[in-house]
Amino acid sequence: MSDRLVKKVAIVGGTHGNELTGIYLIKKFQKLPELVQRSNFETLTILGNPKAITANKRFIDVDLNRCFRGQDLADINLIEYEQIRAKEIAQQLKEEKVDLLLDLHTTTANMGITLILNNTHPFLLALVAYLSKINPAIKILQYSQVYPDTSYLRNLCELGLAIEVGPVSQGVLSANLFKQTEIIISLILDYLEIYNKREIEIKNLFCTVYKQIAIIDYPRSNEGEIQGMIAPGVNDYQALSPGEPLFLSFNDQEIIYEGDQVVYPVFVGEAAYLEKGIAMFLTTKKVVESRV
Amino acid sequence: MSDRLVKKVAIVGGTHGNELTGIYLIKKFQKLPELVQRSNFETLTILGNPKAITANKRFIDVDLNRCFRGQDLADINLIEYEQIRAKEIAQQLKEEKVDLLLDLHTTTANMGITLILNNTHPFLLALVAYLSKINPAIKILQYSQVYPDTSYLRNLCELGLAIEVGPVSQGVLSANLFKQTEIIISLILDYLEIYNKREIEIKNLFCTVYKQIAIIDYPRSNEGEIQGMIAPGVNDYQALSPGEPLFLSFNDQEIIYEGDQVVYPVFVGEAAYLEKGIAMFLTTKKVVESRV
Repeated sequence: MSDRLVKKVAIVGGTHGNELTGIYLIKKFQKLPELVQRSNFETLTILGNPKAITANKRFIDVDLNRCFRGQDLADINLIEYEQIRAKEIAQQLKEEKVDLLLDLHTTTANMGITLILNNTHPFLLALVAYLSKINPAIKILQYSQVYPDTSYLRNLCELGLAIEVGPVSQGVLSANLFKQTEIIISLILDYLEIYNKREIEIKNLFCTVYKQIAIIDYPRSNEGEIQGMIAPGVNDYQALSPGEPLFLSFNDQEIIYEGDQVVYPVFVGEAAYLEKGIAMFLTTKKVVESRV
Repeated sequence: MSDRLVKKVAIVGGTHGNELTGIYLIKKFQKLPELVQRSNFETLTILGNPKAITANKRFIDVDLNRCFRGQDLADINLIEYEQIRAKEIAQQLKEEKVDLLLDLHTTTANMGITLILNNTHPFLLALVAYLSKINPAIKILQYSQVYPDTSYLRNLCELGLAIEVGPVSQGVLSANLFKQTEIIISLILDYLEIYNKREIEIKNLFCTVYKQIAIIDYPRSNEGEIQGMIAPGVNDYQALSPGEPLFLSFNDQEIIYEGDQVVYPVFVGEAAYLEKGIAMFLTTKKVVESRV
């Protein structure tokens, strides 16, 4: 176990203004702050994108959760609403010396409760291994380190984590997912409190990690028009083997997955990714050991 | 059987620009018109809201599917994009002498395949009874006639019908729902062809109709802020009895359904209705006989 202590945690909801679970959780925590207080660290709660929340839209000008690259935060020419908001949030987290960041999201894909890591810091791995031990339904998704993308809010902290829950439509509040997200947050805060106290021994644990290896777009015409739909058999976290249908054209022609290994799609058909040219991510599945 | 002949049918998709099933079906039909041609009537296919389709938004200025009241169509002062588009569509259907109109929609609610009627014209009742005989999973939803709302596109024709399929998020294409909608359309066109031929006897049939009796908003504070979520036990087309939980506050307090009869909620948590102040509709269920 390292000597690290977690002294300040930030929980952000509404980074996307139409993902209501996180927004209403933050509002609840701001009314009842004792829910996120613990004995040996402080917790900040932040609404990421207030204008987009009011408009019930993902964003006003640009996707806030793609505005956090270091060079973009330093670029004084980037003055769209979310680009300015990103600088404000980055500044706040820096001034407040936030150690650990939770960013609350929802997805239209059937991803259950997914914890997203952009790095494999041993502390993060130990935390998510612990959580998936308590609730084996929790999935761990690790973004590519081959082409690291630092544009996400969670990258502002070395210990940054997104909680992604679904399926739920944009602009819809699901009582079940609200409750499940609240429970995960509470478990994380409890874990940090115990960790800081050094009262219990946290052991190395094994957990299953889905690692992003590819981004797949819809089949398109030369003009960019979508030519097919995701095949009905393609589902989040379910094995897809070479030779199985990946897409279905509007005329019922199957388009086959031609990779050379079994993969596990995630963010299958996510509504917000259509405009980004993403039909799904492909991941591989492996068991990793956390070392604390 | 009346002497009516159906001479022209219109199928409209993309009345809401982010409901992709209807949009891609219309595009398919425009490429392969033989799919919607039959021997004894003509079929028009129309994309309702082209600008909103391009923007992947429900609408640009105002909800097109609330722009079709007679007085609004006649009001030269109504010049928002959708208000003008509504006048164009109304003019086109009138000039083309369309007899029967199908308007294709999707919902984020778990409503399966629902056929929505704004009136109980015997011809429409016979048609939907026939369809629900072929596929008993099809639901028939009749909007209130006590407070008739003529603002919907389907009201432009005496024989107007919306096909509402879900659950699917806005901006998402579901291969399953695409296929199911296509099959329903094909069945309707086949029925009309047979009906026009007078070759078979169409009998009176019984069918179950869900009749809208109330519109329910979320619990709200004096400032209009939502104070709770739809209770997990409230589901589309599932009986809700007096005394059962209707909403759940953010602090886990149940808000009870206090009506005096068993009801069947529909459009439960529909994303697009949040801004309209609608959490769900309540309906009653009855068996009606169609008379042809």
